[in-house]
Amino acid sequence: MKENITIVKVGGAVVEDETQLAQLLKDFSAIEGKKVLVHGGGRKATKVAESLGIESKMVNGRRITDAEMLSVVTMVYGGLVNKNLVARLQANGVNALGLTGADMNVIRSHKRPPVHILPLIKGEPEGVVDYGFVGDVDAADGKMLSKLIEEGITPVMAPLTHDGQGNILNTNADTIASETAKALAPYYDVTLIFSFEKKGVLRNPDDDDSVIPVITHEDFEKYKSDGTISGGMLPKIENALSAIDAGVCRVIITLATAIDGRSGTIIKQ
Amino acid sequence: MKENITIVKVGGAVVEDETQLAQLLKDFSAIEGKKVLVHGGGRKATKVAESLGIESKMVNGRRITDAEMLSVVTMVYGGLVNKNLVARLQANGVNALGLTGADMNVIRSHKRPPVHILPLIKGEPEGVVDYGFVGDVDAADGKMLSKLIEEGITPVMAPLTHDGQGNILNTNADTIASETAKALAPYYDVTLIFSFEKKGVLRNPDDDDSVIPVITHEDFEKYKSDGTISGGMLPKIENALSAIDAGVCRVIITLATAIDGRSGTIIKQ
Repeated sequence: MKENITIVKVGGAVVEDETQLAQLLKDFSAIEGKKVLVHGGGRKATKVAESLGIESKMVNGRRITDAEMLSVVTMVYGGLVNKNLVARLQANGVNALGLTGADMNVIRSHKRPPVHILPLIKGEPEGVVDYGFVGDVDAADGKMLSKLIEEGITPVMAPLTHDGQGNILNTNADTIASETAKALAPYYDVTLIFSFEKKGVLRNPDDDDSVIPVITHEDFEKYKSDGTISGGMLPKIENALSAIDAGVCRVIITLATAIDGRSGTIIKQ
Repeated sequence: MKENITIVKVGGAVVEDETQLAQLLKDFSAIEGKKVLVHGGGRKATKVAESLGIESKMVNGRRITDAEMLSVVTMVYGGLVNKNLVARLQANGVNALGLTGADMNVIRSHKRPPVHILPLIKGEPEGVVDYGFVGDVDAADGKMLSKLIEEGITPVMAPLTHDGQGNILNTNADTIASETAKALAPYYDVTLIFSFEKKGVLRNPDDDDSVIPVITHEDFEKYKSDGTISGGMLPKIENALSAIDAGVCRVIITLATAIDGRSGTIIKQ
């Protein structure tokens, strides 16, 4: 039987609110056994960009990353957010190591070519979008990550990858989490927890308690076609299902203050 | 007999000039065997701070780090400079891993209390200075670093440490280099190379070819008292001598484009 590992993805909103962050760090530190933290930081990046006079452009909830914005996200995700999380986890007795995909070549990607997109968010136009310096993942190195983890190290992963040609690329944190989970699946019994500002996937967006307890592939198709699930939740669940298909044992979508895996929506095959 | 390792410290000026940086990365990648890169980034931090409307204050060539400036150096050193170096080294076939002292607890420090200083730079006043969030190193973990190095990894170290209480602290890059060299001395035959914009320690600051080939403790005292060596060179040589005293085999102070260790000033006991 394989040993358990818990991979927790936290969004930018949690990382930037001191009360929520302190709770998250406490909860994450309390998770027994091996673990990995994956973080976002988009709101902080937007703020820093704004202070530098750089405008943030988003399409379908994803950032357009030009050269200037790439510098900002490299600073904010790889430096400010990542290193503060690492230092605070160290203070909580967790032997954290901050990583981008470039570090030890753990996540290799390629620059996304301009893509034709359908609007996920109401009112956004259909069309061709060049996301700029954004990386779509080719491979995550589960072997190297598992070696570190076996040394008692807890990887803390920033949403940045590299193309092997010397370029850092901006990569969605949910993708980093699911690719890391997939890469670790041959070595561990993996639980992947996507935490965010809701208690789970909601049947009714206006009712915070209408959490759907379980979503399978079949359920997802149904919820997608009847409009129960839409917007930014779509890629999140697609990520979750692709992780399950690749051998991740369970994916849980839950509240940032409930990362013990005892509540939320379970995604399974 | 212990295996060789080369630790190269590069300053901010080199890192920020594309031509010099490309040469440095080529030269560093060509160093055979085990190696570590330690970088600065002060000029870039000053520029980013300026863009954010934050004023840089220096005393004796060292930065005063208030809370805002700490955010800037965490972004610039830990993110922008470090991750770009890592990605570019990866492209050169070097399996780089970016580290601050917080990562895996490799360099622990304590916040420097306000200190009474003597002016190192002409015209600066004598007095008590609070450097702010600046860390004086307590311990570097040579065992953990050597484990990584034995896995074929090349650490790329940013000039940031942590206090074990959750705080990142700004730490001089020369100090990071000499503390890393000392910590690795029990495991390797260590050569520490401080690279900068001159060919070595100069006898006459106006003559770029007046390199002093060798400096011992005794020589240093003499050069210090007769004024041959002064200013920012003083802490650099003190760092070098303290590394030698702690078991580092040789320290070389040389030009950023001559990191093969075949020229420059050799510091020895």
